[in-house]
Amino acid sequence: MRIGVLGTGMVGQTVGRRLVGLGHEVRMGSRSAGNDKAVAWAAEVGEGASQGSFADAAGFGELVINATAGAASLAALEAAGAANLAGKVLVDLANPLDGSQGMPPILSVCNTDSLGEQIQRAFPEARVVKTLNTMNCTVMVDPGVLPGSHTVFVCGDDEEAKAEVRALLAEFGWPAEDMLDLGGISSARGVEMYLPLWIRLWTATGTGQLNIKVVVAE
Amino acid sequence: MRIGVLGTGMVGQTVGRRLVGLGHEVRMGSRSAGNDKAVAWAAEVGEGASQGSFADAAGFGELVINATAGAASLAALEAAGAANLAGKVLVDLANPLDGSQGMPPILSVCNTDSLGEQIQRAFPEARVVKTLNTMNCTVMVDPGVLPGSHTVFVCGDDEEAKAEVRALLAEFGWPAEDMLDLGGISSARGVEMYLPLWIRLWTATGTGQLNIKVVVAE
Repeated sequence: MRIGVLGTGMVGQTVGRRLVGLGHEVRMGSRSAGNDKAVAWAAEVGEGASQGSFADAAGFGELVINATAGAASLAALEAAGAANLAGKVLVDLANPLDGSQGMPPILSVCNTDSLGEQIQRAFPEARVVKTLNTMNCTVMVDPGVLPGSHTVFVCGDDEEAKAEVRALLAEFGWPAEDMLDLGGISSARGVEMYLPLWIRLWTATGTGQLNIKVVVAE
Repeated sequence: MRIGVLGTGMVGQTVGRRLVGLGHEVRMGSRSAGNDKAVAWAAEVGEGASQGSFADAAGFGELVINATAGAASLAALEAAGAANLAGKVLVDLANPLDGSQGMPPILSVCNTDSLGEQIQRAFPEARVVKTLNTMNCTVMVDPGVLPGSHTVFVCGDDEEAKAEVRALLAEFGWPAEDMLDLGGISSARGVEMYLPLWIRLWTATGTGQLNIKVVVAE
């Protein structure tokens, strides 16, 4: 599949590399084509990897992944262009973290709204699926780095889009029984508001290589 | 130990009953002594159980448990009286859920503050420990209702108070390795902001008998 990955940070690089490894063609998008990090990434990954502007990447992708920082996501998607997103699955990995008031970061939106909902409202023709934002990118693309089973959440209004995303998660190595559909995109509030706990789990355990497993009564 | 339980709802009743079963003396507190639910609870539980006002319960307890609804917690603790809480471990089980704007509830405080912190600030001589608020009361007092291991969080500024609470959690059946100390009381933001996810997990799994297990790389 042709996939556009928006964002040149560690999340975009890791997810993009993994997708190429799985046989997909990936174009990494950034504010302007020729971004140093995107060029270096494409050179390192080699065949199947390319780079361009946000609009180039979104236009290239049959599916688009938002791997930008949450504070930059709406502007990046605006630059990508609504027409380049229309009808496509838009996988939103971002978290609206705001470190401007010190550490640990707070959320720039929460409680009565979420970044996932903001994105879906701003791009009503995109089929937004929020997933994987509850873990670091090493765990995202290779759940086997953690022992035993643990959970990945999927939120979105479009059932077919969520099915496509579940198929992609399966390629990353996620067993179907560890994928938990939380319902519509308003559930993004739940998975984004988990981030302040996730940050404290990182501090308490001393590793960002962590996730949670949902355990229910038998 | 003599324990004051503030709140006559399902959480207070379940936790109080369990504590009496473990051999503690429990006084349930409510807005006024003779509250119907508290009287019925004390009669049903029998020896070791008594009831009274919030101040009666807090004065009775060597340790005090806040099992009131989050929206009512600060007023209940005010009625309990700072002098009755001074120097004591105050176990805060409450969540600042606000259902006034419809379902699912939102939080009345989050992101830059938390109920746990509000309580610690309002009662600086109490030794507040936030714990168990991330699960329903059946799981709180008997973690074995869920299969395998799963995690209980402990937050608070006073290390000795947290050690006392860990001892109480052990009496409930929590193995030491499933107790995760998240640091100071500001970590209450993390465990309270988890609630919107918890509510959606309940909806998605169809049961409130659930918890999460923190999984870290080996």
